[in-house]
Amino acid sequence: MRPDTPEEPQQPPVRSRADRTADTLERLSRDIDLWVASASQDGRAYLVPLSYHWDGSTLTIATPSASPTARNLIRAGWVRAALGQTRDVVIVEGRVEAIPIGANPELEDAHARSTGFDPRTLADEYVYLRIAPREIQAWRSNELVGRVLMRDGAWLE
Amino acid sequence: MRPDTPEEPQQPPVRSRADRTADTLERLSRDIDLWVASASQDGRAYLVPLSYHWDGSTLTIATPSASPTARNLIRAGWVRAALGQTRDVVIVEGRVEAIPIGANPELEDAHARSTGFDPRTLADEYVYLRIAPREIQAWRSNELVGRVLMRDGAWLE
Repeated sequence: MRPDTPEEPQQPPVRSRADRTADTLERLSRDIDLWVASASQDGRAYLVPLSYHWDGSTLTIATPSASPTARNLIRAGWVRAALGQTRDVVIVEGRVEAIPIGANPELEDAHARSTGFDPRTLADEYVYLRIAPREIQAWRSNELVGRVLMRDGAWLE
Repeated sequence: MRPDTPEEPQQPPVRSRADRTADTLERLSRDIDLWVASASQDGRAYLVPLSYHWDGSTLTIATPSASPTARNLIRAGWVRAALGQTRDVVIVEGRVEAIPIGANPELEDAHARSTGFDPRTLADEYVYLRIAPREIQAWRSNELVGRVLMRDGAWLE
């Protein structure tokens, strides 16, 4: 992203932290997909879009158990993911918990409703991966300062 | 992403490889930003949006030399990046070559024109990272089959 774009037309004013937090919570509730980055033990990066379910404090994705994303995230126990657009970004980092199919039917139902697909019905073996955010950042092109909204799992005041 | 969404309204028809390739080349020319995934040697993933310059066969980004992205990409010599939207994806994987500021003024000028920012004018020390694609995939929600467009650096016929 451009670090500084004063010439950009109709740049909206820099948002307060409270406004960014409200926008971020609204995006987490409204959006369906996010970009999931992961890495293998020997430092090879992977990136793929996935749908998620947001329950107000955690995000749950589902992906084939044999996929690079599942293997990488389960190994690391940690994810860095992005929502939104490149000029209106939300970055979420957090712990990853693997939940096998059948372990949490309520969550599985909610995931199916939010994402529009139900991995319980598919031939491939899927695993749910629940993300507990520890750090959240949000910024637009002119908002690099003040982009940290959550630190150590706590929303900043 | 949902692996299969037949219920989605107004799903456009599945594109041929030729159409996907044309759309992908058009997107590479037209878009400004992409999502760059990288990983540290010990397997920690990173993800950030950056602007790029496309010269018809390579993408050039610029980022502070001390940033996780620069360190990770220079170490790995490889990148996985995404353009577009989560439901209209282009994934680019390729080799990364670091180019210090001053080494290629023509490329630096072209990068500044394409991205709208010029790292040569900034206080932080930046490095250019030139990506030579080796594999390119493109898909929409209903297009998971046939998504490989480039393999080993060659566009598929």
